[in-house]
Amino acid sequence: MTNKVIGIDIGGTNTVIGLIDNKGVCLKKSEFRTDSFNNGEIYVQKIIDIIKSDFLNNNEIKSIGIGAPNGNYLTGCIDEAPNLKWNGNLNIKKLIETSLNLNVVLTNDANAAAYGEMIFGAAKGMKNFAVITLGTGLGSGIVVEGKLLYGHTGLAGELGHVIVKPDDRKCGCGRSGCLETYASATGIKKTVIELLKNLDFESELRNYSINEISSKKIYEAALNNDEIALMAFNYTGRILGLSLANFANITSPEAIFLFGGLAQAEKYIFEPTIKSFNENILHILKDTVKILPSGLPNNMAAILGAAALCYE
Amino acid sequence: MTNKVIGIDIGGTNTVIGLIDNKGVCLKKSEFRTDSFNNGEIYVQKIIDIIKSDFLNNNEIKSIGIGAPNGNYLTGCIDEAPNLKWNGNLNIKKLIETSLNLNVVLTNDANAAAYGEMIFGAAKGMKNFAVITLGTGLGSGIVVEGKLLYGHTGLAGELGHVIVKPDDRKCGCGRSGCLETYASATGIKKTVIELLKNLDFESELRNYSINEISSKKIYEAALNNDEIALMAFNYTGRILGLSLANFANITSPEAIFLFGGLAQAEKYIFEPTIKSFNENILHILKDTVKILPSGLPNNMAAILGAAALCYE
Repeated sequence: MTNKVIGIDIGGTNTVIGLIDNKGVCLKKSEFRTDSFNNGEIYVQKIIDIIKSDFLNNNEIKSIGIGAPNGNYLTGCIDEAPNLKWNGNLNIKKLIETSLNLNVVLTNDANAAAYGEMIFGAAKGMKNFAVITLGTGLGSGIVVEGKLLYGHTGLAGELGHVIVKPDDRKCGCGRSGCLETYASATGIKKTVIELLKNLDFESELRNYSINEISSKKIYEAALNNDEIALMAFNYTGRILGLSLANFANITSPEAIFLFGGLAQAEKYIFEPTIKSFNENILHILKDTVKILPSGLPNNMAAILGAAALCYE
Repeated sequence: MTNKVIGIDIGGTNTVIGLIDNKGVCLKKSEFRTDSFNNGEIYVQKIIDIIKSDFLNNNEIKSIGIGAPNGNYLTGCIDEAPNLKWNGNLNIKKLIETSLNLNVVLTNDANAAAYGEMIFGAAKGMKNFAVITLGTGLGSGIVVEGKLLYGHTGLAGELGHVIVKPDDRKCGCGRSGCLETYASATGIKKTVIELLKNLDFESELRNYSINEISSKKIYEAALNNDEIALMAFNYTGRILGLSLANFANITSPEAIFLFGGLAQAEKYIFEPTIKSFNENILHILKDTVKILPSGLPNNMAAILGAAALCYE
C-alpha cells in the first residue's frame, strides 16, 4: 500500500496542492490563485487538471485531504465561505472523487490544523487537545479521544463565535461580542485603534494609517516596548485566556495549541494568555492543561494538516 | 448472559441502590442515609453488605454502575466531594470490585444522567447531546459520538464553572461569576434576593425569610404571576440561554436536556432559556439544536443513570 497522499489547502487567496509522504515530507508542490475563479465548478476542474497532469503520473496515491474555509466534513461541501468568490455550496468531495476515483476527506482549515498537529506536529500521542488558529478570524479544531469533534452538524468548533462581551464589538457573523472580534489579527488591530483613540501615550503606531496597522506592525511595536502595543497584547491575552479556561472547563484537554499570524508574536501573546488562563481555570483542573505553540512549520502547516486528514 | 445490573446513586443525603433490568425497570430498591457516615471505607462497606444480603441472592448481576458527586471515571475515585462528610479521595470502584468480584463503572452524577438519558430516556438514538442538571449547582454530562466526554483528566463537563460574569457573584469553587451562581436552584434564589432588595414591586416572596426562599417557592410565586419571580426566571434563562448557545457553538449537539429541580419549573425556565439561546446561537447552527426536558421520571433518573453506565 502506498504511503503518499495529496493535501490541498484552499485559502481565499491561494490554493496549494502538495504530495506528502507519511513522515510529513512534501515531495512536490503546486500553487495557483483561488481568487481568480468566480465559478466553483471551474475552480474544482482546475484542481483536478493539476492533479492529473502533475501528481498522478508514476505516483500511487492513498487518498486526498482538503482543508478549506467552511469545509463541512459530513457533507463534503464548502458552504457559503465568505472569502471565496463563488456563491452557494460546492460539493468538492463528490466532484473530485467522481473524476479521479480517489477517496477525498474535506474539513475546515482549523480542523485540518488540529489533525496536522496530531499526525505530524506537537500533539503526537495526545488524545484530547485543541488547536486555535489566530488569523484574520479565530478558528478551532477540537480533538476528543483521538478524533475531530464534528458534532451533530459537522460544524462544531466555532470557539471564535463564543460571545464574550454581549453587545460589544460587531462581528462578521452578524452578532456582537464574539471572541474573534478580540482575539485575532483583526481583533488586536481594533483594540489598538481603541487604545490610540482613548489614551494619550506616545506610540509608534500613531505613525500608520488605520489600513497600515496590522498584527505584524503591532508585534514590531511591542518589540520596541511600545506601551500601546503591549497593552493591546495584554488585553487580547486576558480575554483569550479566560475563554480558553472556560473551554477547558468543559472539555478538559491535555493541551491547547495556538497557531497562526497572531501566535507568531510569541511571548507577547502567550504570556498574558497563560496568566489569564491560570487565573480563570477551575482549581481541580489547574496544571492539567498546557498552552503551547504549534509544532508545525508555519508555511507548511495548512498543507500538512490537509494531508493528515488521509490518516484518519 | 444476564441483563440485570445494579445502579447506585450516591447523594449528599441519601444513597439509593437499585436492581435494574435492560428496559430500565427497577426490580428492587434499597436506601440509606449517606450523611450518617463520616468514614468513607465504612460507608462503602455498608454498600457492599446491602448488595451481598439483598441483591446477590438468586440474581446474576452483569455489573455495577455508580453516579456520585465528583465521581472520576478514569480513577474510580470520589474526589474531595464537598457534600460528602469524609475527607480525601475514596477509591470506591476498587473497594467494591475487590470485595464483590463484579465490574464497577463510576462517574459523576451529571454524566450518569446523560448516560441514563441515552439508554433509557429521551436521547435514545442520539450521538451528540448534553444533559444539564439544574440542582443546587449546575452539572453537565456531554455525549460526543455516543460516548461521554471525559477529556484528559476525566473531569470534563464543568459547564457550571464557565465564568459568565467575571468578578460578579462568589462561587463555591473559590472563583467568581460562574454560570452555576446564576443558573441553579441556588442561583435563582440569589437573583430573587437581589431583585427584592433593588425593586419595590410587591411580591409574595417578601413574606418568606431568606432561608425559606427556594426555587420551588419561586416557581409557586411565578404560577401566581408574581412579577419578581417572573423577572428572576427571565434573568436566569437569559444567562443560561447565552451560555448554552456558546456551548453549542463549540460542540454542535443535537439536543440539550435540562434536568433537575429548577427544570421542573417548566415553561418559566424553558421559555426564556430557549429565547436567549436562539438569539445567541451562531446563524449557521440555527434550528439544529433542540432544548428539551429530560425523558426520565425525576425520582428515578439518578438510579437509572447509574444503571445505564453498565451498558457502555
